[in-house]
Parts: sequence; structure tokens; C-alpha cells
Amino acid sequence: MEKHEVVRLNINFKTLEEFENFREYGQQELSMKEDLEGNIIENDIESPFYGVYFGNKLVGRMSLYKIDKKFDRYFDPPQDYYELWKLEVLPGYQGKGIGESLVNFSKSLGLPVKTNARQRSDSFWEKMGFEPITYHSDRDRGENPYVWFPEGVSEQEN
Amino acid sequence: MEKHEVVRLNINFKTLEEFENFREYGQQELSMKEDLEGNIIENDIESPFYGVYFGNKLVGRMSLYKIDKKFDRYFDPPQDYYELWKLEVLPGYQGKGIGESLVNFSKSLGLPVKTNARQRSDSFWEKMGFEPITYHSDRDRGENPYVWFPEGVSEQEN
Repeated sequence: MEKHEVVRLNINFKTLEEFENFREYGQQELSMKEDLEGNIIENDIESPFYGVYFGNKLVGRMSLYKIDKKFDRYFDPPQDYYELWKLEVLPGYQGKGIGESLVNFSKSLGLPVKTNARQRSDSFWEKMGFEPITYHSDRDRGENPYVWFPEGVSEQEN
Repeated sequence: MEKHEVVRLNINFKTLEEFENFREYGQQELSMKEDLEGNIIENDIESPFYGVYFGNKLVGRMSLYKIDKKFDRYFDPPQDYYELWKLEVLPGYQGKGIGESLVNFSKSLGLPVKTNARQRSDSFWEKMGFEPITYHSDRDRGENPYVWFPEGVSEQEN
């Protein structure tokens, strides 16, 4: 698999227009657009989104959100970690290792990573070194939590 | 649209086998299966899942999970509410009002309902009387929250 360059996406009208190509588009993106239109945020500020471009076209993206140690209910010892969501590669660009490059980028940041593996994507996450963790209905509320443990980190007992 | 009978699903091996037909199948279902196999839970106990049958076949389902008032960050006044997830109708049974019957059932319970509208299902939720609420990145973490307000309930200020 080819390795693809992952870049942090700046929020501007061009990025927001590209986001409209993705299936997982909703209030997070609309809220960013309103903030930009209302001058509540500046053009080109850094977002929680990372992406892969083919030429000028954004073809894959994910959001990485750092959760503070005090809210950590997954890892032992408790620590800051990343929640990864909206991992998506546009049709026509799948099977080229773009998703893998995005996930490898999240693992390169040195913190544990947690995601909600959706719609039978379990084998993808396992290939990426993620593991399912024990389901707790209060914490997980229907999610399908997969985590990546860096060296020395394990599952938190609940 | 026809109205379909919604029943609460009992956890047993037959139900769990039917769950395997749905795309959103994961650790919640696997955990229920392990609990049943290990005699940690009894056969035929009530689950948080509700479904619609065609004959003997489970063709639609959702999970409804009651959240305690003290964790309510969506509604004013703060109150117990339902989180609705894994709403899904099998291919071949879509377009018959089965999803609508499930959602109407959730609204009939007398409490507000919150869901995460996914993959451009916004128009469905709006048709069902749900509304998008203001996106807060700390609370919503990439979700696309839609809520249904009963009479006298409004959005919580954050």
C-alpha cells in the first residue's frame, strides 16, 4: 500500500465545500460554516479534521478530538487520548490505502486512540491494530468501541 | 403508510441470530450473546431493543436507552429522556413505514428522544418531527444530534 500524506485541514469555504462530498456530513460541518459566515471564527484556523488530497481534491478525511484524562473511561493508566470519527474515503479512491494512512497518522501522535467501528468495519480496525473492548451499556450506548493501545497502556477496569 | 406493530425484543438465541442480519451489529450484540451463553443473563429477559416482525422474521429494529435526568445535557427542563440508536430496516422491507412505526413508538413513551442522525438521514428525522440542535463539540463529538421535544420541552442552553 502506498503511503499518503495526511494534512491538517484549515477551516475555510473551500474545505467546507469539499466536506459536502462526504456521507458523514452534518451539524458539525454546518456549525463550522455558520461560525465562518458569521465571522465567529477566522478563515483558515486549524480544525479537528485531517485529510488526504489527490491533486486539489480532498478524497479522505477523519476528525481527531483530544479527550482530557479526567474524562478517560477506557485506558489504564487514565490519560489524554484521541477520539477518531468520520473516517471516510470517497468512492473511487477506496482500496488505495488512504484510510490506512489516516489511521496510522492518528497512531503516530503518541496517545491512545478510540473509535466507534461502524457497519461491520471490524476487520479493518483489527488490521490496523485496534482491539474491541468490553461493552458497557452506560458508557458505550450502542457504540462499537475499538481502541488502539500504545505500549504500556491497557483497558481500564470498569 | 401502514402502521406496524412494535414489540419489545426478548434476548434469546433466536433474537440474537436475527440481529446478525443487520448492518449495525457489533459489541453490544456480542456482549448480549456472551452473557446468554455464560448464563450471566437468563433467556428471554427484556432488552433495550424493539422491533417489527413480518411473520416470523425480524425486519426492523431500534434500541431505546433511558438516560437519567442528572445526565441530561439536551433538554430544558432537564429530565429523563430516551436515546434512540441502531434504527434499521432490512433491505427489501424499506419504504413500508417500518422505520416510521419504530420512531412513532419511541415518541409515544412520553419522554424526549435524542438520536444521532447519520449519513444524510436528516430529511427522514425532520419528517418524523425531530429537530437538529445546536452543535457543541465537547458534548456532541462528531455526532449529528436530532431531538424530539414533547409539549413544554425545549433545548437546554449550554
